[in-house]
Amino acid sequence: MVSKEEMDKFLSSVYPQNKCIVEAFGDQSATVRHKVGFDELRPGGTVSGPVLMTVADFALYVAILGEIGLVPLTVTTSLTINFLRKPSSDKDIIGVCRLLKVGKSLAIGEVALYSADKTESVAHVVGTYSIPPSSQS
Amino acid sequence: MVSKEEMDKFLSSVYPQNKCIVEAFGDQSATVRHKVGFDELRPGGTVSGPVLMTVADFALYVAILGEIGLVPLTVTTSLTINFLRKPSSDKDIIGVCRLLKVGKSLAIGEVALYSADKTESVAHVVGTYSIPPSSQS
Amino acid sequence: MVSKEEMDKFLSSVYPQNKCIVEAFGDQSATVRHKVGFDELRPGGTVSGPVLMTVADFALYVAILGEIGLVPLTVTTSLTINFLRKPSSDKDIIGVCRLLKVGKSLAIGEVALYSADKTESVAHVVGTYSIPPSSQS
Amino acid sequence: MVSKEEMDKFLSSVYPQNKCIVEAFGDQSATVRHKVGFDELRPGGTVSGPVLMTVADFALYVAILGEIGLVPLTVTTSLTINFLRKPSSDKDIIGVCRLLKVGKSLAIGEVALYSADKTESVAHVVGTYSIPPSSQS
Repeated sequence: MVSKEEMDKFLSSVYPQNKCIVEAFGDQSATVRHKVGFDELRPGGTVSGPVLMTVADFALYVAILGEIGLVPLTVTTSLTINFLRKPSSDKDIIGVCRLLKVGKSLAIGEVALYSADKTESVAHVVGTYSIPPSSQS
Repeated sequence: MVSKEEMDKFLSSVYPQNKCIVEAFGDQSATVRHKVGFDELRPGGTVSGPVLMTVADFALYVAILGEIGLVPLTVTTSLTINFLRKPSSDKDIIGVCRLLKVGKSLAIGEVALYSADKTESVAHVVGTYSIPPSSQS
Repeated sequence: MVSKEEMDKFLSSVYPQNKCIVEAFGDQSATVRHKVGFDELRPGGTVSGPVLMTVADFALYVAILGEIGLVPLTVTTSLTINFLRKPSSDKDIIGVCRLLKVGKSLAIGEVALYSADKTESVAHVVGTYSIPPSSQS
Repeated sequence: MVSKEEMDKFLSSVYPQNKCIVEAFGDQSATVRHKVGFDELRPGGTVSGPVLMTVADFALYVAILGEIGLVPLTVTTSLTINFLRKPSSDKDIIGVCRLLKVGKSLAIGEVALYSADKTESVAHVVGTYSIPPSSQS
Protein backbone atom coordinates (compact mmCIF):
# COMPACT_ATOMS: atom_id res chain seq x y z
CA MET A 1 0.00 0.00 0.00
CA VAL A 2 1.22 3.46 -0.94
CA SER A 3 0.72 6.11 1.77
CA LYS A 4 -0.45 9.65 1.04
CA GLU A 5 2.96 10.92 2.12
CA GLU A 6 4.82 8.55 -0.21
CA MET A 7 2.52 9.50 -3.10
CA ASP A 8 3.07 13.25 -2.58
CA LYS A 9 6.84 12.81 -2.25
CA PHE A 10 6.98 10.65 -5.37
CA LEU A 11 4.87 13.05 -7.43
CA SER A 12 6.83 16.15 -6.47
CA SER A 13 10.05 14.27 -7.26
CA VAL A 14 9.16 12.89 -10.71
CA TYR A 15 6.61 15.47 -11.76
CA PRO A 16 7.54 18.88 -10.32
CA GLN A 17 5.59 20.67 -13.10
CA ASN A 18 2.35 19.28 -11.73
CA LYS A 19 -0.08 21.80 -10.21
CA CYS A 20 -2.72 19.34 -8.98
CA ILE A 21 -3.16 18.35 -5.36
CA VAL A 22 -3.94 14.78 -4.33
CA GLU A 23 -6.90 14.80 -1.95
CA ALA A 24 -7.40 11.06 -1.57
CA PHE A 25 -6.74 7.74 -3.31
CA GLY A 26 -7.18 4.02 -2.76
CA ASP A 27 -9.66 1.24 -3.52
CA GLN A 28 -9.34 1.81 -7.30
CA SER A 29 -10.14 5.52 -7.05
CA ALA A 30 -8.63 8.97 -6.53
CA THR A 31 -9.75 12.53 -5.91
CA VAL A 32 -7.56 15.44 -7.01
CA ARG A 33 -7.89 19.24 -7.11
CA HIS A 34 -6.53 22.02 -9.36
CA LYS A 35 -6.61 25.73 -8.47
CA VAL A 36 -8.19 27.97 -11.09
CA GLY A 37 -6.61 31.34 -11.79
CA PHE A 38 -5.93 33.50 -14.84
CA ASP A 39 -3.74 30.85 -16.49
CA GLU A 40 -6.54 28.29 -16.42
CA LEU A 41 -9.18 30.40 -18.18
CA ARG A 42 -10.14 30.63 -21.84
CA PRO A 43 -12.49 32.76 -23.97
CA GLY A 44 -15.91 33.03 -22.34
CA GLY A 45 -14.63 33.25 -18.76
CA THR A 46 -14.50 29.51 -18.30
CA VAL A 47 -11.83 26.98 -17.43
CA SER A 48 -9.92 25.84 -20.51
CA GLY A 49 -10.46 22.33 -21.81
CA PRO A 50 -6.80 21.36 -21.51
CA VAL A 51 -6.88 22.18 -17.77
CA LEU A 52 -9.80 19.76 -17.38
CA MET A 53 -7.88 17.13 -19.35
CA THR A 54 -4.83 17.74 -17.13
CA VAL A 55 -6.87 17.16 -13.98
CA ALA A 56 -8.45 14.00 -15.40
CA ASP A 57 -5.11 12.63 -16.58
CA PHE A 58 -3.61 13.28 -13.15
CA ALA A 59 -6.54 11.69 -11.32
CA LEU A 60 -6.12 8.55 -13.43
CA TYR A 61 -2.36 8.51 -12.77
CA VAL A 62 -2.83 8.77 -9.01
CA ALA A 63 -5.59 6.13 -8.92
CA ILE A 64 -3.43 3.71 -10.93
CA LEU A 65 -0.24 4.35 -8.92
CA GLY A 66 -2.32 3.74 -5.80
CA GLU A 67 -3.06 0.27 -7.15
CA ILE A 68 0.17 -0.82 -8.81
CA GLY A 69 2.73 1.15 -6.79
CA LEU A 70 4.90 4.13 -7.67
CA VAL A 71 5.84 3.32 -11.26
CA PRO A 72 6.90 6.53 -12.99
CA LEU A 73 6.83 5.23 -16.57
CA THR A 74 3.17 4.39 -16.52
CA VAL A 75 1.93 6.54 -19.43
CA THR A 76 -1.38 7.56 -20.93
CA THR A 77 -2.24 5.72 -24.15
CA SER A 78 -5.63 7.28 -24.85
CA LEU A 79 -8.10 9.72 -23.35
CA THR A 80 -11.60 10.77 -24.36
CA ILE A 81 -13.20 13.84 -22.80
CA ASN A 82 -16.77 15.05 -23.16
CA PHE A 83 -17.53 18.57 -21.97
CA LEU A 84 -20.91 18.76 -20.26
CA ARG A 85 -21.37 22.13 -18.54
CA LYS A 86 -19.48 25.40 -18.25
CA PRO A 87 -17.11 25.30 -15.27
CA SER A 88 -17.09 28.25 -12.86
CA SER A 89 -14.16 30.57 -13.46
CA ASP A 90 -13.70 31.14 -9.72
CA LYS A 91 -13.85 27.60 -8.36
CA ASP A 92 -11.20 24.89 -8.16
CA ILE A 93 -11.64 21.92 -10.45
CA ILE A 94 -12.11 18.59 -8.67
CA GLY A 95 -11.44 15.28 -10.47
CA VAL A 96 -12.91 12.06 -9.12
CA CYS A 97 -11.47 8.94 -10.76
CA ARG A 98 -12.86 5.42 -10.56
CA LEU A 99 -10.86 2.66 -12.23
CA LEU A 100 -12.79 0.29 -14.50
CA LYS A 101 -10.02 -2.28 -14.88
CA VAL A 102 -6.41 -2.72 -13.83
CA GLY A 103 -4.93 -5.38 -16.10
CA LYS A 104 -1.38 -6.59 -16.58
CA SER A 105 -0.47 -4.11 -19.31
CA LEU A 106 -3.38 -1.63 -19.43
CA ALA A 107 -5.39 0.20 -16.79
CA ILE A 108 -8.54 2.09 -17.61
CA GLY A 109 -10.72 4.41 -15.63
CA GLU A 110 -13.28 7.16 -15.80
CA VAL A 111 -13.10 10.61 -14.23
CA ALA A 112 -15.93 12.95 -13.33
CA LEU A 113 -14.83 16.59 -13.21
CA TYR A 114 -16.56 19.19 -11.05
CA SER A 115 -16.33 22.84 -10.14
CA ALA A 116 -15.77 22.73 -6.37
CA ASP A 117 -19.03 22.84 -4.40
CA LYS A 118 -21.17 21.93 -7.42
CA THR A 119 -22.97 18.60 -7.77
CA GLU A 120 -23.31 18.44 -11.56
CA SER A 121 -20.17 17.41 -13.41
CA VAL A 122 -18.57 19.77 -15.94
CA ALA A 123 -16.88 17.03 -17.96
CA HIS A 124 -16.49 13.27 -18.20
CA VAL A 125 -13.30 11.46 -19.13
CA VAL A 126 -12.35 7.89 -19.95
CA GLY A 127 -8.64 7.20 -20.15
CA THR A 128 -6.23 4.31 -20.58
CA TYR A 129 -2.71 3.97 -19.19
CA SER A 130 -0.05 1.54 -20.29
CA ILE A 131 1.76 -0.22 -17.44
CA PRO A 132 5.44 -1.08 -18.10
CA PRO A 133 6.08 -4.87 -18.22
CA SER A 134 8.56 -4.99 -15.37
CA SER A 135 6.55 -2.91 -12.97
CA GLN A 136 4.30 -5.44 -11.34
CA SER A 137 5.21 -7.75 -8.53
CA MET B 1 -11.79 35.32 -45.22
CA VAL B 2 -9.83 35.82 -42.01
CA SER B 3 -6.25 37.03 -42.49
CA LYS B 4 -3.29 35.73 -40.46
CA GLU B 5 -2.95 39.16 -38.85
CA GLU B 6 -6.64 39.25 -37.83
CA MET B 7 -6.40 35.72 -36.43
CA ASP B 8 -3.31 36.54 -34.33
CA LYS B 9 -4.85 39.76 -33.04
CA PHE B 10 -8.11 38.04 -32.17
CA LEU B 11 -6.37 35.16 -30.39
CA SER B 12 -4.11 37.37 -28.28
CA SER B 13 -7.13 39.48 -27.36
CA VAL B 14 -9.56 36.73 -26.31
CA TYR B 15 -7.05 34.10 -25.28
CA PRO B 16 -3.94 35.75 -23.81
CA GLN B 17 -3.10 32.58 -21.83
CA ASN B 18 -2.43 30.72 -25.05
CA LYS B 19 1.19 29.68 -25.71
CA CYS B 20 0.70 28.22 -29.19
CA ILE B 21 1.73 29.98 -32.37
CA VAL B 22 -0.38 29.87 -35.53
CA GLU B 23 1.78 28.85 -38.48
CA ALA B 24 -0.91 28.60 -41.16
CA PHE B 25 -4.63 28.05 -41.63
CA GLY B 26 -7.23 27.95 -44.38
CA ASP B 27 -8.96 25.44 -46.64
CA GLN B 28 -10.37 23.49 -43.67
CA SER B 29 -6.97 23.07 -42.04
CA ALA B 30 -4.48 24.66 -39.65
CA THR B 31 -0.90 24.18 -38.50
CA VAL B 32 0.19 25.37 -35.05
CA ARG B 33 3.33 25.12 -32.91
CA HIS B 34 4.05 24.96 -29.16
CA LYS B 35 7.48 25.49 -27.62
CA VAL B 36 8.63 22.72 -25.30
CA GLY B 37 10.48 23.67 -22.13
CA PHE B 38 10.57 22.48 -18.52
CA ASP B 39 6.87 23.24 -17.96
CA GLU B 40 5.84 20.95 -20.80
CA LEU B 41 7.67 17.83 -19.62
CA ARG B 42 6.50 14.91 -17.49
CA PRO B 43 8.07 11.79 -15.93
CA GLY B 44 10.26 9.96 -18.45
CA GLY B 45 11.64 13.11 -20.10
CA THR B 46 8.78 13.42 -22.53
CA VAL B 47 6.19 16.05 -23.36
CA SER B 48 3.15 15.77 -21.08
CA GLY B 49 -0.10 14.49 -22.53
CA PRO B 50 -2.04 17.63 -21.60
CA VAL B 51 0.38 19.76 -23.64
CA LEU B 52 -0.35 17.59 -26.67
CA MET B 53 -4.09 17.95 -26.01
CA THR B 54 -3.64 21.71 -25.72
CA VAL B 55 -1.92 21.90 -29.09
CA ALA B 56 -4.58 19.72 -30.73
CA ASP B 57 -7.43 21.71 -29.20
CA PHE B 58 -5.85 24.95 -30.39
CA ALA B 59 -5.23 23.62 -33.92
CA LEU B 60 -8.91 22.66 -34.14
CA TYR B 61 -9.96 26.09 -32.85
CA VAL B 62 -7.84 27.91 -35.44
CA ALA B 63 -8.97 25.68 -38.32
CA ILE B 64 -12.63 26.20 -37.39
CA LEU B 65 -12.30 29.98 -36.88
CA GLY B 66 -10.61 30.12 -40.27
CA GLU B 67 -13.79 28.64 -41.75
CA ILE B 68 -16.59 30.28 -39.76
CA GLY B 69 -14.96 33.58 -38.78
CA LEU B 70 -13.74 34.89 -35.42
CA VAL B 71 -16.39 33.52 -33.07
CA PRO B 72 -14.96 33.42 -29.55
CA LEU B 73 -17.67 31.27 -27.97
CA THR B 74 -17.03 28.30 -30.20
CA VAL B 75 -16.19 25.65 -27.58
CA THR B 76 -14.89 22.11 -27.53
CA THR B 77 -17.57 19.49 -26.87
CA SER B 78 -15.43 16.35 -27.08
CA LEU B 79 -11.88 15.28 -27.79
CA THR B 80 -10.25 11.86 -28.14
CA ILE B 81 -6.48 11.54 -28.11
CA ASN B 82 -4.40 8.46 -28.83
CA PHE B 83 -0.72 8.61 -27.92
CA LEU B 84 1.43 6.88 -30.53
CA ARG B 85 5.11 7.56 -29.91
CA LYS B 86 7.24 9.33 -27.29
CA PRO B 87 7.70 12.99 -28.23
CA SER B 88 11.21 14.48 -28.10
CA SER B 89 11.77 16.53 -24.97
CA ASP B 90 13.81 19.10 -26.89
CA LYS B 91 11.63 19.71 -29.95
CA ASP B 92 8.59 21.93 -30.45
CA ILE B 93 5.27 20.18 -30.86
CA ILE B 94 3.55 20.78 -34.22
CA GLY B 95 -0.18 20.20 -34.65
CA VAL B 96 -1.65 19.74 -38.11
CA CYS B 97 -5.46 19.88 -38.19
CA ARG B 98 -7.73 18.81 -41.02
CA LEU B 99 -11.45 19.40 -40.59
CA LEU B 100 -13.75 16.47 -41.37
CA LYS B 101 -16.98 18.45 -41.32
CA VAL B 102 -18.13 21.99 -40.61
CA GLY B 103 -21.86 21.82 -39.96
CA LYS B 104 -24.33 24.39 -38.69
CA SER B 105 -23.92 23.56 -35.02
CA LEU B 106 -20.95 21.19 -34.86
CA ALA B 107 -17.51 21.14 -36.46
CA ILE B 108 -15.24 18.13 -36.28
CA GLY B 109 -11.66 17.56 -37.24
CA GLU B 110 -8.60 15.45 -36.72
CA VAL B 111 -5.14 16.56 -35.66
CA ALA B 112 -1.81 14.84 -36.20
CA LEU B 113 0.80 15.88 -33.63
CA TYR B 114 4.52 15.78 -34.35
CA SER B 115 7.82 16.58 -32.72
CA ALA B 116 9.29 19.23 -35.03
CA ASP B 117 11.45 17.74 -37.80
CA LYS B 118 10.06 14.23 -37.31
CA THR B 119 7.84 12.49 -39.86
CA GLU B 120 6.07 9.99 -37.61
CA SER B 121 3.26 11.44 -35.50
CA VAL B 122 3.43 11.31 -31.70
CA ALA B 123 -0.33 11.45 -31.17
CA HIS B 124 -3.62 11.55 -33.05
CA VAL B 125 -6.66 13.57 -31.98
CA VAL B 126 -10.27 13.78 -33.09
CA GLY B 127 -12.24 16.67 -31.64
CA THR B 128 -15.63 18.32 -31.92
CA TYR B 129 -16.51 21.97 -31.41
CA SER B 130 -19.93 23.45 -30.86
CA ILE B 131 -20.69 26.55 -32.94
CA PRO B 132 -23.01 29.12 -31.30
CA PRO B 133 -26.37 29.47 -33.16
CA SER B 134 -26.03 33.14 -34.01
CA SER B 135 -22.49 32.98 -35.29
CA GLN B 136 -22.94 32.04 -38.91
CA SER B 137 -23.84 34.33 -41.70
CA MET C 1 -43.93 10.43 -19.50
CA VAL C 2 -43.46 7.57 -21.99
CA SER C 3 -44.84 4.22 -20.82
CA LYS C 4 -43.02 0.91 -21.37
CA GLU C 5 -45.83 -0.13 -23.74
CA GLU C 6 -45.53 3.07 -25.80
CA MET C 7 -41.75 2.68 -25.98
CA ASP C 8 -41.96 -0.93 -27.19
CA LYS C 9 -44.62 -0.08 -29.77
CA PHE C 10 -42.63 2.91 -31.03
CA LEU C 11 -39.39 0.94 -31.31
CA SER C 12 -40.93 -2.00 -33.18
CA SER C 13 -42.59 0.47 -35.53
CA VAL C 14 -39.60 2.67 -36.41
CA TYR C 15 -36.82 0.16 -35.81
CA PRO C 16 -38.03 -3.36 -36.70
CA GLN C 17 -34.44 -4.52 -37.33
CA ASN C 18 -33.65 -4.08 -33.64
CA LYS C 19 -32.92 -7.25 -31.64
CA CYS C 20 -32.56 -5.65 -28.20
CA ILE C 21 -35.21 -5.85 -25.49
CA VAL C 22 -36.01 -2.89 -23.27
CA GLU C 23 -35.97 -4.01 -19.65
CA ALA C 24 -36.49 -0.65 -17.95
CA PHE C 25 -36.03 3.09 -18.47
CA GLY C 26 -36.72 6.37 -16.73
CA ASP C 27 -34.96 8.85 -14.46
CA GLN C 28 -32.19 9.48 -17.03
CA SER C 29 -31.37 5.79 -17.34
CA ALA C 30 -32.22 2.60 -19.22
CA THR C 31 -31.49 -1.11 -19.06
CA VAL C 32 -31.59 -3.24 -22.21
CA ARG C 33 -30.77 -6.86 -23.12
CA HIS C 34 -29.51 -8.62 -26.26
CA LYS C 35 -29.61 -12.39 -26.77
CA VAL C 36 -26.30 -13.97 -27.71
CA GLY C 37 -26.29 -16.73 -30.32
CA PHE C 38 -24.05 -17.78 -33.21
CA ASP C 39 -24.54 -14.49 -35.07
CA GLU C 40 -23.20 -12.49 -32.13
CA LEU C 41 -19.89 -14.36 -31.72
CA ARG C 42 -16.46 -13.66 -33.14
CA PRO C 43 -13.04 -15.38 -33.18
CA GLY C 44 -12.11 -16.59 -29.71
CA GLY C 45 -15.62 -17.65 -28.71
CA THR C 46 -16.59 -14.22 -27.45
CA VAL C 47 -19.30 -11.70 -28.24
CA SER C 48 -18.30 -9.46 -31.15
CA GLY C 49 -17.45 -5.85 -30.46
CA PRO C 50 -20.12 -4.48 -32.81
CA VAL C 51 -22.81 -6.35 -30.85
CA LEU C 52 -21.62 -4.61 -27.69
CA MET C 53 -21.70 -1.26 -29.52
CA THR C 54 -25.22 -2.05 -30.76
CA VAL C 55 -26.44 -2.72 -27.23
CA ALA C 56 -24.82 0.45 -25.91
CA ASP C 57 -26.19 2.57 -28.73
CA PHE C 58 -29.68 1.18 -28.13
CA ALA C 59 -29.47 1.72 -24.35
CA LEU C 60 -28.55 5.37 -24.97
CA TYR C 61 -31.43 5.75 -27.47
CA VAL C 62 -33.97 4.35 -25.02
CA ALA C 63 -32.69 6.42 -22.10
CA ILE C 64 -32.85 9.60 -24.19
CA LEU C 65 -36.29 8.88 -25.67
CA GLY C 66 -37.48 8.24 -22.11
CA GLU C 67 -36.45 11.82 -21.30
CA ILE C 68 -37.35 13.79 -24.43
CA GLY C 69 -40.23 11.69 -25.80
CA LEU C 70 -40.49 9.45 -28.86
CA VAL C 71 -38.44 11.41 -31.39
CA PRO C 72 -37.32 9.03 -34.14
CA LEU C 73 -34.73 11.30 -35.76
CA THR C 74 -32.59 11.54 -32.68
CA VAL C 75 -29.28 10.18 -34.01
CA THR C 76 -25.90 9.17 -32.63
CA THR C 77 -23.15 11.72 -33.25
CA SER C 78 -20.27 9.97 -31.49
CA LEU C 79 -19.53 6.87 -29.47
CA THR C 80 -16.42 5.67 -27.65
CA ILE C 81 -16.17 2.09 -26.44
CA ASN C 82 -13.51 0.53 -24.27
CA PHE C 83 -13.43 -3.24 -24.03
CA LEU C 84 -12.62 -4.41 -20.52
CA ARG C 85 -13.17 -8.15 -20.16
CA LYS C 86 -14.10 -11.06 -22.41
CA PRO C 87 -17.89 -11.51 -22.49
CA SER C 88 -19.33 -15.00 -21.99
CA SER C 89 -20.37 -16.61 -25.27
CA ASP C 90 -23.44 -18.17 -23.64
CA LYS C 91 -24.90 -15.25 -21.71
CA ASP C 92 -27.10 -12.37 -22.83
CA ILE C 93 -25.49 -8.94 -22.95
CA ILE C 94 -27.03 -6.38 -20.60
CA GLY C 95 -26.54 -2.63 -21.15
CA VAL C 96 -27.10 -0.18 -18.32
CA CYS C 97 -27.20 3.46 -19.45
CA ARG C 98 -26.96 6.52 -17.26
CA LEU C 99 -27.33 9.92 -18.94
CA LEU C 100 -24.73 12.54 -18.06
CA LYS C 101 -26.52 15.47 -19.66
CA VAL C 102 -29.67 16.11 -21.69
CA GLY C 103 -29.24 19.49 -23.35
CA LYS C 104 -31.24 21.27 -26.00
CA SER C 105 -29.36 19.86 -28.98
CA LEU C 106 -27.12 17.15 -27.54
CA ALA C 107 -27.63 14.36 -25.01
CA ILE C 108 -24.75 12.36 -23.62
CA GLY C 109 -24.57 9.27 -21.49
CA GLU C 110 -22.45 6.35 -20.43
CA VAL C 111 -23.27 2.66 -20.68
CA ALA C 112 -21.86 -0.23 -18.68
CA LEU C 113 -22.13 -3.54 -20.53
CA TYR C 114 -22.32 -6.89 -18.71
CA SER C 115 -22.66 -10.57 -19.44
CA ALA C 116 -25.92 -11.49 -17.68
CA ASP C 117 -25.38 -12.61 -14.07
CA LYS C 118 -21.86 -11.19 -13.91
CA THR C 119 -20.92 -8.21 -11.76
CA GLU C 120 -17.82 -6.98 -13.61
CA SER C 121 -18.51 -5.03 -16.77
CA VAL C 122 -17.24 -6.29 -20.14
CA ALA C 123 -17.15 -2.87 -21.79
CA HIS C 124 -17.73 0.82 -21.13
CA VAL C 125 -19.27 3.25 -23.58
CA VAL C 126 -19.74 7.02 -23.74
CA GLY C 127 -22.02 8.24 -26.49
CA THR C 128 -23.61 11.44 -27.75
CA TYR C 129 -26.92 11.86 -29.55
CA SER C 130 -28.09 14.86 -31.50
CA ILE C 131 -31.66 15.97 -30.76
CA PRO C 132 -33.57 17.51 -33.71
CA PRO C 133 -34.41 21.22 -33.15
CA SER C 134 -38.18 20.86 -33.37
CA SER C 135 -38.47 17.89 -31.09
CA GLN C 136 -38.70 19.47 -27.67
CA SER C 137 -41.79 20.90 -26.12
CA MET D 1 3.19 -11.51 -46.61
CA VAL D 2 -0.42 -12.63 -46.40
CA SER D 3 -2.12 -13.13 -49.80
CA LYS D 4 -5.70 -12.08 -50.52
CA GLU D 5 -6.65 -15.73 -50.86
CA GLU D 6 -5.14 -16.63 -47.47
CA MET D 7 -6.87 -13.69 -45.83
CA ASP D 8 -10.29 -14.62 -47.23
CA LYS D 9 -9.86 -18.27 -46.26
CA PHE D 10 -8.73 -17.34 -42.76
CA LEU D 11 -11.59 -14.91 -42.23
CA SER D 12 -14.30 -17.29 -43.42
CA SER D 13 -12.82 -19.98 -41.19
CA VAL D 14 -12.50 -18.02 -37.90
CA TYR D 15 -15.26 -15.46 -38.48
CA PRO D 16 -18.09 -17.04 -40.54
CA GLN D 17 -20.60 -14.50 -39.13
CA ASN D 18 -18.80 -11.70 -40.94
CA LYS D 19 -20.69 -10.01 -43.78
CA CYS D 20 -17.92 -7.68 -44.97
CA ILE D 21 -15.88 -8.25 -48.09
CA VAL D 22 -12.15 -7.53 -48.22
CA GLU D 23 -11.39 -5.41 -51.26
CA ALA D 24 -7.69 -4.78 -50.65
CA PHE D 25 -5.07 -4.65 -47.91
CA GLY D 26 -1.36 -4.11 -47.46
CA ASP D 27 1.10 -1.33 -46.70
CA GLN D 28 -0.58 -0.55 -43.34
CA SER D 29 -4.01 -0.13 -44.91
CA ALA D 30 -7.17 -1.99 -45.91
CA THR D 31 -10.37 -1.36 -47.88
CA VAL D 32 -13.52 -3.34 -47.09
CA ARG D 33 -17.16 -3.28 -48.21
CA HIS D 34 -20.51 -4.14 -46.58
CA LYS D 35 -23.76 -4.59 -48.48
CA VAL D 36 -26.65 -2.47 -47.24
CA GLY D 37 -30.11 -4.03 -47.12
CA PHE D 38 -33.11 -3.95 -44.77
CA ASP D 39 -31.13 -5.36 -41.83
CA GLU D 40 -28.61 -2.51 -42.00
CA LEU D 41 -31.12 0.36 -41.84
CA ARG D 42 -32.43 2.34 -38.88
CA PRO D 43 -35.08 5.07 -38.28
CA GLY D 44 -34.76 7.81 -40.88
CA GLY D 45 -33.89 5.51 -43.79
CA THR D 46 -30.19 5.55 -43.05
CA VAL D 47 -27.55 2.94 -42.30
CA SER D 48 -27.45 2.09 -38.59
CA GLY D 49 -24.50 3.25 -36.53
CA PRO D 50 -23.54 -0.26 -35.43
CA VAL D 51 -23.19 -1.34 -39.07
CA LEU D 52 -20.71 1.50 -39.60
CA MET D 53 -18.83 0.44 -36.46
CA THR D 54 -18.80 -3.15 -37.74
CA VAL D 55 -17.25 -2.09 -41.04
CA ALA D 56 -14.64 0.05 -39.30
CA ASP D 57 -13.76 -2.67 -36.82
CA PHE D 58 -13.38 -5.16 -39.66
CA ALA D 59 -11.25 -2.78 -41.75
CA LEU D 60 -8.91 -2.34 -38.78
CA TYR D 61 -8.75 -6.11 -38.23
CA VAL D 62 -7.84 -6.77 -41.87
CA ALA D 63 -5.24 -3.98 -42.00
CA ILE D 64 -3.59 -5.27 -38.81
CA LEU D 65 -3.65 -8.94 -39.87
CA GLY D 66 -2.09 -7.84 -43.15
CA GLU D 67 0.82 -6.47 -41.12
CA ILE D 68 1.29 -8.99 -38.31
CA GLY D 69 -0.04 -12.15 -39.97
CA LEU D 70 -3.17 -14.21 -39.37
CA VAL D 71 -3.49 -14.00 -35.59
CA PRO D 72 -7.10 -14.73 -34.63
CA LEU D 73 -6.93 -13.53 -31.02
CA THR D 74 -6.06 -9.99 -31.93
CA VAL D 75 -8.97 -8.13 -30.30
CA THR D 76 -10.33 -4.59 -30.24
CA THR D 77 -9.52 -2.69 -27.05
CA SER D 78 -11.16 0.64 -27.90
CA LEU D 79 -12.98 2.38 -30.73
CA THR D 80 -14.21 5.94 -31.18
CA ILE D 81 -16.64 6.76 -33.96
CA ASN D 82 -17.83 10.19 -35.08
CA PHE D 83 -20.80 10.31 -37.42
CA LEU D 84 -20.40 13.00 -40.05
CA ARG D 85 -23.08 12.71 -42.74
CA LYS D 86 -26.16 10.57 -43.39
CA PRO D 87 -25.21 7.44 -45.35
CA SER D 88 -27.30 6.49 -48.41
CA SER D 89 -29.76 3.71 -47.66
CA ASP D 90 -29.18 2.15 -51.08
CA LYS D 91 -25.39 2.16 -51.33
CA ASP D 92 -22.80 -0.24 -49.90
CA ILE D 93 -20.64 1.06 -47.09
CA ILE D 94 -16.92 1.24 -47.85
CA GLY D 95 -14.33 1.38 -45.07
CA VAL D 96 -10.82 2.62 -45.77
CA CYS D 97 -8.36 1.97 -42.93
CA ARG D 98 -4.93 3.48 -42.49
CA LEU D 99 -2.83 2.27 -39.57
CA LEU D 100 -1.22 4.94 -37.39
CA LYS D 101 1.04 2.60 -35.45
CA VAL D 102 1.72 -1.11 -35.19
CA GLY D 103 3.53 -1.66 -31.91
CA LYS D 104 4.47 -4.82 -30.03
CA SER D 105 1.28 -5.06 -28.01
CA LEU D 106 -1.06 -2.44 -29.52
CA ALA D 107 -1.97 -1.44 -33.06
CA ILE D 108 -3.96 1.68 -33.81
CA GLY D 109 -5.54 3.00 -36.95
CA GLU D 110 -8.15 5.28 -38.39
CA VAL D 111 -10.97 4.40 -40.77
CA ALA D 112 -12.88 6.67 -43.13
CA LEU D 113 -16.33 5.31 -43.97
CA TYR D 114 -18.13 6.16 -47.22
CA SER D 115 -21.33 5.38 -49.04
CA ALA D 116 -20.10 3.74 -52.26
CA ASP D 117 -19.53 6.27 -55.08
CA LYS D 118 -19.54 9.27 -52.70
CA THR D 119 -16.46 11.34 -51.94
CA GLU D 120 -17.42 12.79 -48.56
CA SER D 121 -17.07 10.41 -45.64
CA VAL D 122 -20.12 9.44 -43.55
CA ALA D 123 -18.15 8.62 -40.41
CA HIS D 124 -14.64 8.60 -38.97
CA VAL D 125 -13.26 5.95 -36.62
CA VAL D 126 -10.13 5.56 -34.54
CA GLY D 127 -9.60 2.13 -33.05
CA THR D 128 -7.03 0.16 -31.09
CA TYR D 129 -6.36 -3.57 -31.19
CA SER D 130 -4.43 -5.60 -28.67
CA ILE D 131 -1.91 -8.03 -30.18
CA PRO D 132 -1.34 -11.28 -28.22
CA PRO D 133 2.23 -11.55 -26.81
CA SER D 134 3.18 -14.74 -28.65
CA SER D 135 1.95 -13.67 -32.05
CA GLN D 136 4.89 -11.79 -33.45
CA SER D 137 7.96 -13.27 -34.99
